[in-house]
Amino acid sequence: MSTARITLVNPNSLTKVTDAIAQAVVPFQRLPLEFRCLTSTGGPAGIQTQAEADASIAPMAQLFLQEADTTDAFIVACFSDPGLHGLRDLVSAPVLGIGESSVLTAMSMATRIGVIAIAAASVPRHLRYFRAMGVADRICAELSLDMKVSELADAELAFARMATVGKTLRDAHGAEVLIMGCAGMADLRGRLEDACGLPVVEPTQAAVAMAAGRVFSR
Amino acid sequence: MSTARITLVNPNSLTKVTDAIAQAVVPFQRLPLEFRCLTSTGGPAGIQTQAEADASIAPMAQLFLQEADTTDAFIVACFSDPGLHGLRDLVSAPVLGIGESSVLTAMSMATRIGVIAIAAASVPRHLRYFRAMGVADRICAELSLDMKVSELADAELAFARMATVGKTLRDAHGAEVLIMGCAGMADLRGRLEDACGLPVVEPTQAAVAMAAGRVFSR
Amino acid sequence: MSTARITLVNPNSLTKVTDAIAQAVVPFQRLPLEFRCLTSTGGPAGIQTQAEADASIAPMAQLFLQEADTTDAFIVACFSDPGLHGLRDLVSAPVLGIGESSVLTAMSMATRIGVIAIAAASVPRHLRYFRAMGVADRICAELSLDMKVSELADAELAFARMATVGKTLRDAHGAEVLIMGCAGMADLRGRLEDACGLPVVEPTQAAVAMAAGRVFSR
Amino acid sequence: MSTARITLVNPNSLTKVTDAIAQAVVPFQRLPLEFRCLTSTGGPAGIQTQAEADASIAPMAQLFLQEADTTDAFIVACFSDPGLHGLRDLVSAPVLGIGESSVLTAMSMATRIGVIAIAAASVPRHLRYFRAMGVADRICAELSLDMKVSELADAELAFARMATVGKTLRDAHGAEVLIMGCAGMADLRGRLEDACGLPVVEPTQAAVAMAAGRVFSR
Amino acid sequence: MSTARITLVNPNSLTKVTDAIAQAVVPFQRLPLEFRCLTSTGGPAGIQTQAEADASIAPMAQLFLQEADTTDAFIVACFSDPGLHGLRDLVSAPVLGIGESSVLTAMSMATRIGVIAIAAASVPRHLRYFRAMGVADRICAELSLDMKVSELADAELAFARMATVGKTLRDAHGAEVLIMGCAGMADLRGRLEDACGLPVVEPTQAAVAMAAGRVFSR
Amino acid sequence: MSTARITLVNPNSLTKVTDAIAQAVVPFQRLPLEFRCLTSTGGPAGIQTQAEADASIAPMAQLFLQEADTTDAFIVACFSDPGLHGLRDLVSAPVLGIGESSVLTAMSMATRIGVIAIAAASVPRHLRYFRAMGVADRICAELSLDMKVSELADAELAFARMATVGKTLRDAHGAEVLIMGCAGMADLRGRLEDACGLPVVEPTQAAVAMAAGRVFSR
Repeated sequence: MSTARITLVNPNSLTKVTDAIAQAVVPFQRLPLEFRCLTSTGGPAGIQTQAEADASIAPMAQLFLQEADTTDAFIVACFSDPGLHGLRDLVSAPVLGIGESSVLTAMSMATRIGVIAIAAASVPRHLRYFRAMGVADRICAELSLDMKVSELADAELAFARMATVGKTLRDAHGAEVLIMGCAGMADLRGRLEDACGLPVVEPTQAAVAMAAGRVFSR
Repeated sequence: MSTARITLVNPNSLTKVTDAIAQAVVPFQRLPLEFRCLTSTGGPAGIQTQAEADASIAPMAQLFLQEADTTDAFIVACFSDPGLHGLRDLVSAPVLGIGESSVLTAMSMATRIGVIAIAAASVPRHLRYFRAMGVADRICAELSLDMKVSELADAELAFARMATVGKTLRDAHGAEVLIMGCAGMADLRGRLEDACGLPVVEPTQAAVAMAAGRVFSR
Repeated sequence: MSTARITLVNPNSLTKVTDAIAQAVVPFQRLPLEFRCLTSTGGPAGIQTQAEADASIAPMAQLFLQEADTTDAFIVACFSDPGLHGLRDLVSAPVLGIGESSVLTAMSMATRIGVIAIAAASVPRHLRYFRAMGVADRICAELSLDMKVSELADAELAFARMATVGKTLRDAHGAEVLIMGCAGMADLRGRLEDACGLPVVEPTQAAVAMAAGRVFSR
Repeated sequence: MSTARITLVNPNSLTKVTDAIAQAVVPFQRLPLEFRCLTSTGGPAGIQTQAEADASIAPMAQLFLQEADTTDAFIVACFSDPGLHGLRDLVSAPVLGIGESSVLTAMSMATRIGVIAIAAASVPRHLRYFRAMGVADRICAELSLDMKVSELADAELAFARMATVGKTLRDAHGAEVLIMGCAGMADLRGRLEDACGLPVVEPTQAAVAMAAGRVFSR
Repeated sequence: MSTARITLVNPNSLTKVTDAIAQAVVPFQRLPLEFRCLTSTGGPAGIQTQAEADASIAPMAQLFLQEADTTDAFIVACFSDPGLHGLRDLVSAPVLGIGESSVLTAMSMATRIGVIAIAAASVPRHLRYFRAMGVADRICAELSLDMKVSELADAELAFARMATVGKTLRDAHGAEVLIMGCAGMADLRGRLEDACGLPVVEPTQAAVAMAAGRVFSR
Repeated sequence: MSTARITLVNPNSLTKVTDAIAQAVVPFQRLPLEFRCLTSTGGPAGIQTQAEADASIAPMAQLFLQEADTTDAFIVACFSDPGLHGLRDLVSAPVLGIGESSVLTAMSMATRIGVIAIAAASVPRHLRYFRAMGVADRICAELSLDMKVSELADAELAFARMATVGKTLRDAHGAEVLIMGCAGMADLRGRLEDACGLPVVEPTQAAVAMAAGRVFSR
């Protein structure tokens, strides 16, 4: 293996989100890795509800099969990790989910983890997922911005709300590390760390790091 | 409301399975309920892997939307409850899953619950699900028959293996109640109870009972 | 079996409470079921403490033995389910507890369950019970009205406090479904749902539904 | 306080069991404590089922009230701790249960605790109790002798079976400390330790120690 | 054995703290026990961080080996129980930790336990410890005084803050019993109980009681 | 940052183990990382007991302080992660433990994780650690080779036992992924995967991958 190829799939059909996901990958370009960030064009226009998460799986599975020959590791680039376990059955390359990877990474950083969700509707779905993962005890709280994915276009507003939520997680719930519970906000990571005085895990970066670990430990 | 309509959806495309599901409903025909057992014709031909479970969701969602106007309660008739939470967001009628319903019903019967799975590949998926439900501590063990859905055609062989697994769950794991971890085996319930000397929960019946509870408590 | 007979036992000696329990059953009268609501006249005058719950068991056991021949399913109509497991050993018919049934029913409706207790003194007892059941992770919070059973006579006051507590469970604890943690308040269920904008599980109705499920799945 | 008075109550009506409980106290006679071992004459003749445990509570409560004036700490001398929380509400003196005390004591000795039950029927009841206590994760296994209380009269037979079960807990389940899951077997403790090469917690002694701690830390 | 010898080791090098630990032992002087309170002079000057807790282990191990011949039970007198399990491997006498003992003792007193920590930095370390012990579900909350060990010299200030934190644990988190999460504050126990209206466990006393139980049950 | 420097510390004093740890790093040499594998010469000669793990912390802390200026990420290269949390407080660079990293990595690969321990004495210590981490539910079993670190010199014998234990974890406990519960066995990883037909996580490699993730996501 000369250069390992990491394929990141945005399970929703918004190319803007795919572009933002690509931003998360930039720091890793020092590594002998080739990154491809793909949009699952058959997916829903954003994933907030469980139904949208479920609806994204079938088109993403098609994309995985199509890219399997030229991929050394896949990343499902949506915090709910739609279809993660099924996709692992589908292809032989490692498949990482950004939600799972972000929690596992945060677990190596501090005891109490706070999660910032975009939408309140996502919180019970994430809770079920943390429980299925067997890590719910490590999440001290998950709070939402109560902003729509579309509102995130106003990055300053998003950042201000995120910082407020982050501080509440820190002060009222004891969070020692924060997870951004959504793809595509890597550009805000450093500012959020400064605002809250806590390390922040950006989920796509967490998944890329774990994918790199998988391909380079062979 | 004169007669409540319960729509049971078999998420796989095998009409034989739908027919077997219909058998489970027979004892409830004394109730003022109208049952429709539908096949999700766009679904996979059997659900054993997580990928098959995921692939069954999108066509089932279509069927739900189509039947929503004439349905008072829906039942997802596959033990893995594919898409359950998303389908609940999709329609206003109650949606019950046969996996969830069977566990909840068994929890009202005894302390230690044993689950009989058809395929070994289903066990980790079920385990993640029991954990997501927050009930994993109640499942003393899940053991598989290691038979394919197709092999179940030989009902005697299936029954013999099932009885052996049931007795192991009872004797080696302390199970006081058994769950059949698959739709479409209602006809074996009584014989399994006799063979193992334990109550057996048939998941479709558990879901029908919970669905009836929902429609009649209004 | 033509008509199945469900015996509901109020373990305290207050006939007013028994009458209120009977109200909960009304919607189920469309089913081929015969309901008897009995008062355990030897029981304590109300059950708030663990000692009162324990003291209610012996007289209730007598009543169960007396009614066993003419009962197809029993219901212990007190949220603490006093004596539930022992009573199951005592009679061959299914025995449902309204506390257990309400939690199991709520678990089929949403991820995070809020419980409204009448008395603060009941909360640790309920907590021990939820833990014994293995479902404590599903209860996002239990808050009490801090009203005595006697104060509940003022239904408007009770309702106002209940609605306030319900909204706190929803807004501060993320409850998506509420359980009324006491028998005999079925008449307030609809109003509480309207006030809080959440589904409400009335425990006696939950138990009747599960009892019906048991008798009709044979 | 000159000499503190510890009242041990055997909740079943068998004076033989009370006598055996009194044996457990002997090593503590070096302490400035006065021990009274009482038989709850209104209790059932042995406690193996949950129904028997429940039936023992009411007569024991009477005895507690009667002895409250002359007691500095009470001990419920049955491994299932019938009525423990309610009895704590009833009297102002500390009330210790031998089941709870034995688990808490074993938790200060080793990580994995094995429990030896007399009857298989007790195991699910104990399991519910360990869960209610929030300590189920520390119990690596509970196995039963499958002997009736009456059979225990043959001390050699009881000991032989107990030693076999203890070794299975050690070798197959990793137990590092054993709990005798029944009152009245203190005389076998030393021999069981020798046979299994593990420390053994005798529950009445564990409760006496905790009761002494409570009265002497004032 | 005539008089049993209990050796309490203060793992930090502050003799003031050792003196305060000695105060906790006073009520137990009615027992046939000889107490020695030793300072681990090679230990750190106070234990608030995990690094300080870890650094205290090696010098304490030396002290244990040195005192083993003349000790019937050891007590590690720091709430974080540094080195507890390793020290148990090192000497044959029982070794009790004051943190572990205080939690186990509180578990025999009430369902929901509140812990008062001195420093916020200790809370995640305690949380990891409660989880390792398998008892985290019993701790309803741990809140810190946010005072340095040195500030505790002002006993009135310490007491006032402790009482405030204790009432918050009671009112906002439902604590029914409080644990002082630090050695050396036994003199404040009674006043804290009066101020909060709740029983308070002083950890050194809890450990002495459990150590006494171990030596007198032989 | 041109080349990031990863410092791996073997907390025991055996240079042979350090050499074996260095072997684990080889596949990562394609990355722009500089690896230093250091022996904590003041540490114990092997770490099997909790006391040895504790004794290794103080000398390792010295080494960390000494290397802090020239290190971008540290790795504690012992499966018990001695001192991990304290070392994180000591230096500003990320500190990864190979035990923690291996579990987190395995959690991204499959649902049920089996752990192969060298010594039986390590198992309860690991169990406490998995619980402290909040991940114990994901470990289906940990079984030991019952070989001393010294015996591992006979690599063939070690491999044969390891393969047997791995197959037992797979067949009797349902493990889908295995963790080698010890540093220094990277050379056996591929053979163990072949023998058991399961993916195997080598803990040092898992930690290096996570450390790389940390340094490259900046």
